[in-house]
Amino acid sequence: MTTATRLQALRKLMEERGYDALVIPRADEHLGEYIPLHNERLLWVSGFTGSAGVVVVLRDSAAIFVDGRYTVQVRQQVDAAHFSYQHLINTPPASWLAAALRSGARVAVDPRLHSLQWYRDAEDTLQASGVVLCADADNLVDRCWHDRPAPDVRPALLLDDSFSGESSASKRARIAASLEGHRADAALVFAPDSVSWLLNVRGLDVPCLPVLQAMALIWRDASVDLIVDPQRMPPGWQAHCGADVRLHAPQEAATLLAGQAGQRVVADPHTANAWSQQLLEEGCATLIAAPDPVLLPKACKNAVEIAGARAAHVRDAVAVVRFLAWLDAQLQHGEYHDEAGLADQLLAFREEGEHFQGPSFETISAAGGNAAMCHYNHRNATPARLPPDSVYLVDSGGQYTDGTTDITRTVAIGTPAAGVRKLFTLVLQGHIALDQAHFPRGTTGTHLDVLARQPLWREGFDYDHGTGHGVGAFLSVHEGPQRISRAWSAATLEPGMILSNEPGYYRDGEFGIRCENLVVVQALNGELETPMYGFDVLTLVPFDRRLIEVGLLSPAEQAWIDAYHRRVEDTVAPLLDELDRQWLEQACAPLIAS
Amino acid sequence: MTTATRLQALRKLMEERGYDALVIPRADEHLGEYIPLHNERLLWVSGFTGSAGVVVVLRDSAAIFVDGRYTVQVRQQVDAAHFSYQHLINTPPASWLAAALRSGARVAVDPRLHSLQWYRDAEDTLQASGVVLCADADNLVDRCWHDRPAPDVRPALLLDDSFSGESSASKRARIAASLEGHRADAALVFAPDSVSWLLNVRGLDVPCLPVLQAMALIWRDASVDLIVDPQRMPPGWQAHCGADVRLHAPQEAATLLAGQAGQRVVADPHTANAWSQQLLEEGCATLIAAPDPVLLPKACKNAVEIAGARAAHVRDAVAVVRFLAWLDAQLQHGEYHDEAGLADQLLAFREEGEHFQGPSFETISAAGGNAAMCHYNHRNATPARLPPDSVYLVDSGGQYTDGTTDITRTVAIGTPAAGVRKLFTLVLQGHIALDQAHFPRGTTGTHLDVLARQPLWREGFDYDHGTGHGVGAFLSVHEGPQRISRAWSAATLEPGMILSNEPGYYRDGEFGIRCENLVVVQALNGELETPMYGFDVLTLVPFDRRLIEVGLLSPAEQAWIDAYHRRVEDTVAPLLDELDRQWLEQACAPLIAS
Repeated sequence: MTTATRLQALRKLMEERGYDALVIPRADEHLGEYIPLHNERLLWVSGFTGSAGVVVVLRDSAAIFVDGRYTVQVRQQVDAAHFSYQHLINTPPASWLAAALRSGARVAVDPRLHSLQWYRDAEDTLQASGVVLCADADNLVDRCWHDRPAPDVRPALLLDDSFSGESSASKRARIAASLEGHRADAALVFAPDSVSWLLNVRGLDVPCLPVLQAMALIWRDASVDLIVDPQRMPPGWQAHCGADVRLHAPQEAATLLAGQAGQRVVADPHTANAWSQQLLEEGCATLIAAPDPVLLPKACKNAVEIAGARAAHVRDAVAVVRFLAWLDAQLQHGEYHDEAGLADQLLAFREEGEHFQGPSFETISAAGGNAAMCHYNHRNATPARLPPDSVYLVDSGGQYTDGTTDITRTVAIGTPAAGVRKLFTLVLQGHIALDQAHFPRGTTGTHLDVLARQPLWREGFDYDHGTGHGVGAFLSVHEGPQRISRAWSAATLEPGMILSNEPGYYRDGEFGIRCENLVVVQALNGELETPMYGFDVLTLVPFDRRLIEVGLLSPAEQAWIDAYHRRVEDTVAPLLDELDRQWLEQACAPLIAS
Repeated sequence: MTTATRLQALRKLMEERGYDALVIPRADEHLGEYIPLHNERLLWVSGFTGSAGVVVVLRDSAAIFVDGRYTVQVRQQVDAAHFSYQHLINTPPASWLAAALRSGARVAVDPRLHSLQWYRDAEDTLQASGVVLCADADNLVDRCWHDRPAPDVRPALLLDDSFSGESSASKRARIAASLEGHRADAALVFAPDSVSWLLNVRGLDVPCLPVLQAMALIWRDASVDLIVDPQRMPPGWQAHCGADVRLHAPQEAATLLAGQAGQRVVADPHTANAWSQQLLEEGCATLIAAPDPVLLPKACKNAVEIAGARAAHVRDAVAVVRFLAWLDAQLQHGEYHDEAGLADQLLAFREEGEHFQGPSFETISAAGGNAAMCHYNHRNATPARLPPDSVYLVDSGGQYTDGTTDITRTVAIGTPAAGVRKLFTLVLQGHIALDQAHFPRGTTGTHLDVLARQPLWREGFDYDHGTGHGVGAFLSVHEGPQRISRAWSAATLEPGMILSNEPGYYRDGEFGIRCENLVVVQALNGELETPMYGFDVLTLVPFDRRLIEVGLLSPAEQAWIDAYHRRVEDTVAPLLDELDRQWLEQACAPLIAS
């Protein structure tokens, strides 16, 4: 099928059902970041592989909406003969449709693929122009997609308490108790990573994201109605999750949700899909708009999860250090590998580590100017070979049964220009300042973001992305509510939260720099007048000393780097063979020889 | 009249008008921070002199609501026999009334003394308990207050363009043009400082706040309807303000506001009073809720205002330096003055300066443990004498025709303990870090606040107030929208904004420390990849070197202090007599003798 015939099939169906427009977002019914292949409807209709976007099909034209990250890529992948290009943020699809359509026109959306908040906002926007939003859960793409792959359904992994640190029964009791504050009978636990945390289950059928494709209702008595494909639940799941977890197949979901008359149900309109909440409402349940009650408890890791994260990070460090040592050796032999080969080699080292389950996201392996694109993916074009006298940026991570990792290192290839070394040093100074921050209860990531930027700002440089994101425990590598960014976040940083610390600098077409460690929030010891929190580092891989302009560093910054490298060497060196250990020793040598 | 007879008179009137409760806020119809004596209704009924509070009179009891700053003071000033004490923030009066009154009860408020937002919120809160909010602009206190002082009405000052830097006609044209974005016909310019800025007029009848007690409507054609006591407008005002400014006496205001049927009027429900907006609505005008359009243009000072601020700050520095030199000499002679004598002496020095119009707020002159109260006022009790081997905190400012000043210095009295010097140094380090910040467009004060706190936080200390507030140009010493604080502020810092930089530290009953300069936001020079803003300092008075632990400072911090002191000495020394110059020279000597 060509794009033309696909659009033709969709338009025929639109005509049959009386729609003037059809909205196809890059989303499936779980509204997560990663989507299994059989749900890549946007890709099917447009050929676009980016992680965010929307297609709107009209009767005689179509448009694709992408954000600033993808304005180049969309022109390479999506045929201008069939689609116009729109900016997803500046021209939201609903506003565009309100302007494009006549009053009385009908717009079809699948309510399973949008949050309730999006649905309501779109409805308001369209209504102002007399355009009608029509919820149609009998997805039009699915009806036309004849060679759609079968879902990859694999039995879930039952996560032992030795990894989770808390039984599902205990977690469910905590969440159930939190419903009291809302005077609620139940909560819709919609996000698959929330369900996975709650039941101590992990799914293995979506790449990078080890979550069970499921949703749930949790009740005041701590019992759970779990909606999931029964094939996903392995033998023994009932004993593992608890006798008060009731299983429902997806085809029973509508009946279940619509059958809660009179119940008061907490649901998050920003993250749960419109379909589930509309069914609850149609069944005369009362919706209480509030954040997913699992979000915060999940974000604050317990002692077992933190110990697991530390152990996973040591294994991950061994893999990354072996990779960096191997890379240096290859370069010494004049072997300038390409981005794909480098990413594959790094994965191979990770695969040797205990408990490794797969990458935590698609590796960004970016040579030279490609690294200036923050979300570069070498699979989108011919992978580039490392240019001499440049820097190589590698942002990668692993899912381990005991923890999730995410690390970026920027590596000298030959002798990079002095200007590059200065910028690397400024980025590293920001990284150090954030790492060293102490802060009282009530502090959010927005308060701390400036610490990572001030060294760059003082020289007239900046980077156009957040400084840190939350990270799950063998769950999503991007996890809320915690984050560190200029955009206001009301989520306070709490002990046990894991975050990335990743300032960067990017020069279009020339190079990209990023220094990323994961850190965990912890209460500081000692008798302090005002109790303080701080970060303890999880990632244990040296920063490239060849890129550091030591003269720009304060004595305190030099001491930080030397102390960090000593900690890396002390922890990782004993786990390496002789050659790699020698490489690590020189990589961790003090900045100024004593 | 005693408190008892005052309450009795109010209750008699409440009965006559059928009210079960009467709300008396500390506010007048301009909702400003400073209130002329004849409008101090809360003081009349309760005896409370604090700057914020609410009294609620019921048929057989009464309550006074104050915030955390005043919990001690209220018990000293307000008789517990007649009033119960409530916390203004934790127990808002409307919530308290909703709980205290039966359904059907009637609560009187004067809608001139509350913002529309407050009024609506209170109405909602009371309605939930079936209690009725009644707007009664025939103020009950005024009817009972027989010895009420006459208003102090003085002719306003017409501020020459050589001070304002822009004619009223030009300002009005700018504001009128900004109405287009709202598709509005007019805007209610409610705040007296906004009206004063718009018309280049200053009032001299409220202490500390040189604003015209007035409100205005500005129209799309840049003409203005000005509501003000005509006795306040001096001869020549029409030529000064413009022929298209129409004067209306306050008694004509209701007719004017209620006569705008069909007009679309911008008004800020958070800052304009309920009375004016309810009149507009009752007269069938359409209200457009948006910030006062004068707020941002007023906050961004023009070149003339900035030059004026610099000149005023030099004069203010002369006064403060003379005061600090005098204080040291007095102490050397064994004269330990009390807080009142010190404040009076400082005022006397300021009064010698050209263009001085009065203090910009009540001086905080706080010896020893009194300085631990951030809003200490020595007039509330017997002023304390300086204790030996302590620190003295003096926070004061002046209104000059060319600018408004606000400065805090903390002064060594004898030999303060080493712990005090360490804390002073931490506070000063925070001050320096904020002063040196560079930041791109789009940065708000919330982003920068952490820079001032990080040195304290690293040692387990903090301070419980904002780090900086906006300052007007011969207007209010507290001006929005700009501020620097942990509480989220969406107002970005723009060139020309003047702000305070005032971290501090307070130890209950022992001492208080604050280091405050005013700074102005300016674009940085030079070819920067990302254009940056920074602060330039206005205040030019040395920090007490005797309180600085030099060993705690980085070389960059030492250099900052020495450079600042060099700038102070270069600017101020030529304006002093010989003895004061000698004092300034030693006060500005390099931290480490070369």
